[in-house]
Amino acid sequence: LRNGFPEVIYCEGKSLAEIEGIVKEMLKHENNILASRAEKEVYQRIKEIAPEAVYHERPKMIFIEKQKLKKTKSKILVVSGGTSDIPVAEEAVVTAEALGNSVERLYDVGVAGIHRLLGNLDKLNDAEVIITVAGMEGALASVVGGLVDKPVIAVPTSVGYGANFGGVSALLTMLNSCASGIGVVNIDNGFGAAYLASTINLQIEKARKEG
Amino acid sequence: LRNGFPEVIYCEGKSLAEIEGIVKEMLKHENNILASRAEKEVYQRIKEIAPEAVYHERPKMIFIEKQKLKKTKSKILVVSGGTSDIPVAEEAVVTAEALGNSVERLYDVGVAGIHRLLGNLDKLNDAEVIITVAGMEGALASVVGGLVDKPVIAVPTSVGYGANFGGVSALLTMLNSCASGIGVVNIDNGFGAAYLASTINLQIEKARKEG
Amino acid sequence: LRNGFPEVIYCEGKSLAEIEGIVKEMLKHENNILASRAEKEVYQRIKEIAPEAVYHERPKMIFIEKQKLKKTKSKILVVSGGTSDIPVAEEAVVTAEALGNSVERLYDVGVAGIHRLLGNLDKLNDAEVIITVAGMEGALASVVGGLVDKPVIAVPTSVGYGANFGGVSALLTMLNSCASGIGVVNIDNGFGAAYLASTINLQIEKARKEG
Amino acid sequence: LRNGFPEVIYCEGKSLAEIEGIVKEMLKHENNILASRAEKEVYQRIKEIAPEAVYHERPKMIFIEKQKLKKTKSKILVVSGGTSDIPVAEEAVVTAEALGNSVERLYDVGVAGIHRLLGNLDKLNDAEVIITVAGMEGALASVVGGLVDKPVIAVPTSVGYGANFGGVSALLTMLNSCASGIGVVNIDNGFGAAYLASTINLQIEKARKEG
Amino acid sequence: LRNGFPEVIYCEGKSLAEIEGIVKEMLKHENNILASRAEKEVYQRIKEIAPEAVYHERPKMIFIEKQKLKKTKSKILVVSGGTSDIPVAEEAVVTAEALGNSVERLYDVGVAGIHRLLGNLDKLNDAEVIITVAGMEGALASVVGGLVDKPVIAVPTSVGYGANFGGVSALLTMLNSCASGIGVVNIDNGFGAAYLASTINLQIEKARKEG
Amino acid sequence: LRNGFPEVIYCEGKSLAEIEGIVKEMLKHENNILASRAEKEVYQRIKEIAPEAVYHERPKMIFIEKQKLKKTKSKILVVSGGTSDIPVAEEAVVTAEALGNSVERLYDVGVAGIHRLLGNLDKLNDAEVIITVAGMEGALASVVGGLVDKPVIAVPTSVGYGANFGGVSALLTMLNSCASGIGVVNIDNGFGAAYLASTINLQIEKARKEG
Amino acid sequence: LRNGFPEVIYCEGKSLAEIEGIVKEMLKHENNILASRAEKEVYQRIKEIAPEAVYHERPKMIFIEKQKLKKTKSKILVVSGGTSDIPVAEEAVVTAEALGNSVERLYDVGVAGIHRLLGNLDKLNDAEVIITVAGMEGALASVVGGLVDKPVIAVPTSVGYGANFGGVSALLTMLNSCASGIGVVNIDNGFGAAYLASTINLQIEKARKEG
Amino acid sequence: LRNGFPEVIYCEGKSLAEIEGIVKEMLKHENNILASRAEKEVYQRIKEIAPEAVYHERPKMIFIEKQKLKKTKSKILVVSGGTSDIPVAEEAVVTAEALGNSVERLYDVGVAGIHRLLGNLDKLNDAEVIITVAGMEGALASVVGGLVDKPVIAVPTSVGYGANFGGVSALLTMLNSCASGIGVVNIDNGFGAAYLASTINLQIEKARKEG
Ligand SMILES: Nc1ncnc2c1ncn2[C@@H]1O[C@H](COP(=O)(O)O)[C@@H](O)[C@H]1O
Ligand SMILES: Nc1ncnc2c1ncn2[C@@H]1O[C@H](COP(=O)(O)O)[C@@H](O)[C@H]1O
Ligand SMILES: Nc1ncnc2c1ncn2[C@@H]1O[C@H](COP(=O)(O)O)[C@@H](O)[C@H]1O
Ligand SMILES: Nc1ncnc2c1ncn2[C@@H]1O[C@H](COP(=O)(O)O)[C@@H](O)[C@H]1O
Ligand SMILES: [Mg+2]
Ligand SMILES: [Mg+2]
Ligand SMILES: [Mg+2]
Ligand SMILES: [Mg+2]
Ligand SMILES: [Mg+2]
Ligand SMILES: [Mg+2]
Ligand SMILES: [Mg+2]
Ligand SMILES: [Mg+2]
Repeated sequence: LRNGFPEVIYCEGKSLAEIEGIVKEMLKHENNILASRAEKEVYQRIKEIAPEAVYHERPKMIFIEKQKLKKTKSKILVVSGGTSDIPVAEEAVVTAEALGNSVERLYDVGVAGIHRLLGNLDKLNDAEVIITVAGMEGALASVVGGLVDKPVIAVPTSVGYGANFGGVSALLTMLNSCASGIGVVNIDNGFGAAYLASTINLQIEKARKEG
Repeated sequence: LRNGFPEVIYCEGKSLAEIEGIVKEMLKHENNILASRAEKEVYQRIKEIAPEAVYHERPKMIFIEKQKLKKTKSKILVVSGGTSDIPVAEEAVVTAEALGNSVERLYDVGVAGIHRLLGNLDKLNDAEVIITVAGMEGALASVVGGLVDKPVIAVPTSVGYGANFGGVSALLTMLNSCASGIGVVNIDNGFGAAYLASTINLQIEKARKEG
Repeated sequence: LRNGFPEVIYCEGKSLAEIEGIVKEMLKHENNILASRAEKEVYQRIKEIAPEAVYHERPKMIFIEKQKLKKTKSKILVVSGGTSDIPVAEEAVVTAEALGNSVERLYDVGVAGIHRLLGNLDKLNDAEVIITVAGMEGALASVVGGLVDKPVIAVPTSVGYGANFGGVSALLTMLNSCASGIGVVNIDNGFGAAYLASTINLQIEKARKEG
Repeated sequence: LRNGFPEVIYCEGKSLAEIEGIVKEMLKHENNILASRAEKEVYQRIKEIAPEAVYHERPKMIFIEKQKLKKTKSKILVVSGGTSDIPVAEEAVVTAEALGNSVERLYDVGVAGIHRLLGNLDKLNDAEVIITVAGMEGALASVVGGLVDKPVIAVPTSVGYGANFGGVSALLTMLNSCASGIGVVNIDNGFGAAYLASTINLQIEKARKEG
Repeated sequence: LRNGFPEVIYCEGKSLAEIEGIVKEMLKHENNILASRAEKEVYQRIKEIAPEAVYHERPKMIFIEKQKLKKTKSKILVVSGGTSDIPVAEEAVVTAEALGNSVERLYDVGVAGIHRLLGNLDKLNDAEVIITVAGMEGALASVVGGLVDKPVIAVPTSVGYGANFGGVSALLTMLNSCASGIGVVNIDNGFGAAYLASTINLQIEKARKEG
Repeated sequence: LRNGFPEVIYCEGKSLAEIEGIVKEMLKHENNILASRAEKEVYQRIKEIAPEAVYHERPKMIFIEKQKLKKTKSKILVVSGGTSDIPVAEEAVVTAEALGNSVERLYDVGVAGIHRLLGNLDKLNDAEVIITVAGMEGALASVVGGLVDKPVIAVPTSVGYGANFGGVSALLTMLNSCASGIGVVNIDNGFGAAYLASTINLQIEKARKEG
Repeated sequence: LRNGFPEVIYCEGKSLAEIEGIVKEMLKHENNILASRAEKEVYQRIKEIAPEAVYHERPKMIFIEKQKLKKTKSKILVVSGGTSDIPVAEEAVVTAEALGNSVERLYDVGVAGIHRLLGNLDKLNDAEVIITVAGMEGALASVVGGLVDKPVIAVPTSVGYGANFGGVSALLTMLNSCASGIGVVNIDNGFGAAYLASTINLQIEKARKEG
Repeated sequence: LRNGFPEVIYCEGKSLAEIEGIVKEMLKHENNILASRAEKEVYQRIKEIAPEAVYHERPKMIFIEKQKLKKTKSKILVVSGGTSDIPVAEEAVVTAEALGNSVERLYDVGVAGIHRLLGNLDKLNDAEVIITVAGMEGALASVVGGLVDKPVIAVPTSVGYGANFGGVSALLTMLNSCASGIGVVNIDNGFGAAYLASTINLQIEKARKEG
């Protein structure tokens, strides 16, 4: 149905055997396969049946490239705040690439040191869709949203402690942003953000080609 | 900055005099003006200083068209569940049009009678961006998200009572949707959904024109 | 008292020794025995004193059939969304069967791919009582509730992460369903759903027999 | 589709004109009509176009009986705790009757004076389906659930103050009941409880007739 | 100050060495010592320096009786619902006895089988102060409160799962009880309930003696 | 049953006519009558049928003394923090007196000015039971609880704004008090606190008399 | 005690008569008087007994200057986001001035248009203590906190709707700020922020004078 | 930029290798280094590359003093309630000292035994800034805030169980304090409290020096 797209497995809560079974089944279709929330031991098992499998450590994702990925002309930019947000940011990057998008990174530009972000306005200007990933108070999404007039997708992360309530603080920040035009996904859901960014980017790409 | 865009006023919590002052100031710029959450009496006052002002009753919005609106080729579709969700849906429609987008409506297709939605798949297929507006349990967003592979923006509404907690039930539904690629905005925020949809649609339009 | 019914043990938080003691006591009554939330090691211990004990791995239930189960003519259908919901769905299935009901399964019909559900309307039509089991946003209950005019019991599961808040998102969805006539039980409570379905089904069965 | 059933309007948030329009439309079908959450002035308006309309003051419901109601042989019993719960209990009674069920009442049997409930066991035994309506701590559902082996539907009400959180205390009580087999509906949702009870009762009735 | 009272240590979060140090210090005063939330290994260490230490396994309490306990004439009754509530109930029993009170137990009288409670009214009548311990929906406190006209102290426990939210459901039940005159303590706080019951009972005892 | 006790009506949510009806019925028993949460117009109506009715403005209570109140020898002390807590404190005072207790007041001793409380230790020492009433952060209960070794009942009030969440802040403070032996009642529930204090005080009184 | 300080009245929930009584009493001390949350009618009444009373409309405060205010050399800067936050910001300004501080304003510098804030760095640099006032997502506090190395006090406001939960979103943002050294006060508590800022500023002033 | 300040690492969620890398990089700058939330094994690794590293066990902090710390003349006092709050209190102490402040401790002065606090008023009077650290109900902040007229910073801790909700009870207490002028930081955030106290204290010190 979703032509060219990878098949996707969410590994959390599935046994090694279950995942292996699903992948074996998928391998028959000759599609690309993307597995998220996969511990290293999942990768080791999968590699035995799919030697081309690549493991992305920080986001804990496995990608099996059966069909060569094409890259869009327009770009998705993934912006993140602190070091601890990187696994979620990378989940977005790996997903967006697996879905055929060109992706750029702009990391470590949290609002406590706003000059780093302001020194990279060209990166913001150069992308068609922006994903912001931030934990703690998640203010990054508002600042980015105020700087650009493009689709901004915000991913709250569970990074922080105490009254961050496992990511609720960043989630509420993003839902209540005074910068208009921000679409929010679930806490730590780098995958979903990239998926949404990709549907946007592919619509742009299609319009570019079809006129 | 945001060339061609209307200037926007959020009227809730502002006095008649304050709103009048802001509009007078804005009228000097010869831009279009959009006022949201405006009671009828606000409209009556504004009409005296801007006779071309039009009042949209259900979403309580005022639009002053100083510069003729252009319409995009690609379309934003606004889908809603029950009758009570229509004011929020119309806030999205009026906003999206004021931002220069072509907009279609598909109302009263709540999941309790799913056949009405399934009988309108052509409308879903025909749009580039979809906004789903739903209260109570908000399941509409998931069903629509599962039927299409396009950007879907979800607006939870505060419609319902008891354990809907003023829209929280629909909000959580949309954030946890098993259909990937849904961007969520604040409860009852038809304006923000339309704004996000518009940034997407304008990127699509730009790509179509610029190739 | 509850003639023909199994005696039931909820194992969570009880020691092996405690459970063994309770089962030994129960075995004297020659009733069937159903143990829920029982780890495999509980089963291994119980098997020594009740060799006819059967272990259901996914729902972690033990059933000891001392008196041959009768099956009702009318049927309970258990419908579930994703793979991760199956343990809870199976808790419902095993419980309902242990209470003497005929049970059917319809799994993996989550609303993100609604056509699988719509392709199985006969199963929905064929049952007297329906249990829907779903996590994440739990929209399945609403869609099923809109398709049938029968008692629908909804079990929210804790499947998901982030803003699912351990099952609260699915719970609220089900409580606020725009489809009327849905009775909700606690998060992950497949047992309770089956128990309620069984009281309904046994009333139906009784009416059928007694006229 | 739902043959013999009344058409239903939920009046909250609809204007007099809107409700009048909907009822006029419905009157063409010659079906019975049930309007919930209808203020007295709604009734006065409706009475002008449907003189047979009857107003139930406490639950604020209007019933228009176009086709003579049939009564089931089996019975739904509505049990309630305090005086303040009666409007919700009556919403259940009027709804269940409008759906063609025989209904009994057992009011003012809150657990703070448990002897009144225990003195009415015959009423509990005499019904096929039981609806319990209770606010504050909602313990009534558990006690009733422990006394009978029938389907029990529990309606938490928003009656109380402070840490009742608008009905959340009773809702949680009912979801966590130590008595198995209780299906819970939304806070103050007497309508939904009756609707569910009715689907159960009609299945029983059907089995009785069809054998 | 608090003459005759034991000194109390709350062991959770303290190291073996810290607890040993505190106990050594306390032993100098020749007072009785009560340690709560003490794992078995704490007991083993303490026993070496205080051979008369007694370990209560279920509530995980250590009692060192340096001065012979006196017993009050009036009685505290500890009532509990399910088996899993017993550790908290026993924390109350051991504490109350260590504070010099006569204590009775009435366990396993949850409201799902209300007849066991009703069959023990003499026990309720025979006590001066009642502590009710219950998890899940915690309805026991309301039922007991309705049966007697004495001080009732309610301890919600964290027993349950899902929407019990770690004891919040039982806590809210008890705070909103329709039976007047119930004083609530923190979730799982058998100690605090017993302490309060003891201050009440000692006032009664004092009045009896002093007239 | 509850000999000597007044009959009690909770007026909130009842119509004038309903309250009048209930009082008329009660007047037949020649018992004392206490009505809580009664607006002035309720009093005016009641006075017509019971001229001896007295209205307490601040707690909005009506008392009808048909049988001369006796006073206990032991005393209940009601301690409160700020001026805004006085209506709840007075609800406790009037209730406790209507139940036959001797009552003392100690108002305006909030912890922000702790010296006023410390200057009144004699009042704390002189009572048998203490009720503390406090809003905002509710710290008063802990401080009083630390100063005395008597039963302390804590009433959180809804006084405050913002993150007081309608009394939740004070409620949590009281439930988590580091001073042992505090029994908590619902937010703004001066009545319940007095009722509990009275059951304690009457037990003390009984012991004093019976020895 | 607090020499030179005004006496303060919090008017919310007090009657005109009560406030008048308190002010009359205070006027005897010849101190300055500050009344917060005072409706205009309160002012009109107070003016009759204290003609020098000045009313600040936006923050609804009354100030009666009996003793000429001194001004500190060091400055408190009050920074705010949107127009709707100004009443709270002004509550801080009027309070800080009434406590003897020099105060500057920097309004309308919300993060959605960050350049306005960045264009006013001199104002940030010029103050000794900064109060940031922001609603919706409250990101302003983090950005300001990252730009300066001074005490920053953050006041969340209840401005916004839906998932702002009456100011909780801004509150959590401020508590979880990735910029260190931010002290947070209650929602809408401009008074408390100014009070804290003043204790800081007066310590600075004292050190300047005393060396 | 922040001249003389240590560089800071927050270790939670970073691997040994990552921390080692960051420290190595920092060591090049010859600044002092402070690492928080560092397990002992982190210290052991760091000591190999920075032998002057000192480990503070209770707050789990590492300090590397490359440049001799200066001490302010004015003092920060850290006040704490129970024994279990000490790790957080010590996080504040070590941080404040690492930032160049003179620090005093006043521990174990919880409000359940208020006389210990009142016996140490000189310590409160002797400091310029006070940090209060308290868990459970956190009432200490209010009492201290009422006793002094200086900046008070409050740190809620997660100490407690049940309805303390991981520190929320203490957090709400502090935000709603009836004592004005308290600035609150995140739960368990001793670091942030010390950082804020230090910005205050350094402003005081600067004013003292510069006049
Ligand atoms: N209905 C609405 N919901 C959310 N944001 C809105 C709405 N209407 C307007 N806005 C935003 O509010 C800004 C204007 O706010 P204000 O300056 O307070 O009038 C606009 O730039 C929009 O971004
Ligand atoms: N009191 C009520 N509570 C919940 N749902 C209701 C209630 N009354 C009517 N409904 C439902 O609302 C539907 C009508 O909604 P509407 O089309 O907005 O009038 C009916 O089909 C019922 O399923
Ligand atoms: N299980 C318990 N729950 C609540 N409070 C307790 C418990 N056990 C002891 N305490 C209280 O904790 C105090 C001792 O705390 P600590 O000094 O930390 O050992 C005692 O004085 C009791 O008031
Ligand atoms: N215990 C702590 N709690 C909150 N913030 C901290 C803590 N320790 C360090 N920080 C902050 O975290 C920053 C370093 O974070 P990171 O770059 O992730 O190591 C420092 O500049 C501090 O502002
Ligand atoms: Mg933008
Ligand atoms: Mg989709
Ligand atoms: Mg249905
Ligand atoms: Mg039952
Ligand atoms: Mg009672
Ligand atoms: Mg005490
Ligand atoms: Mg800073
Ligand atoms: Mg102070």
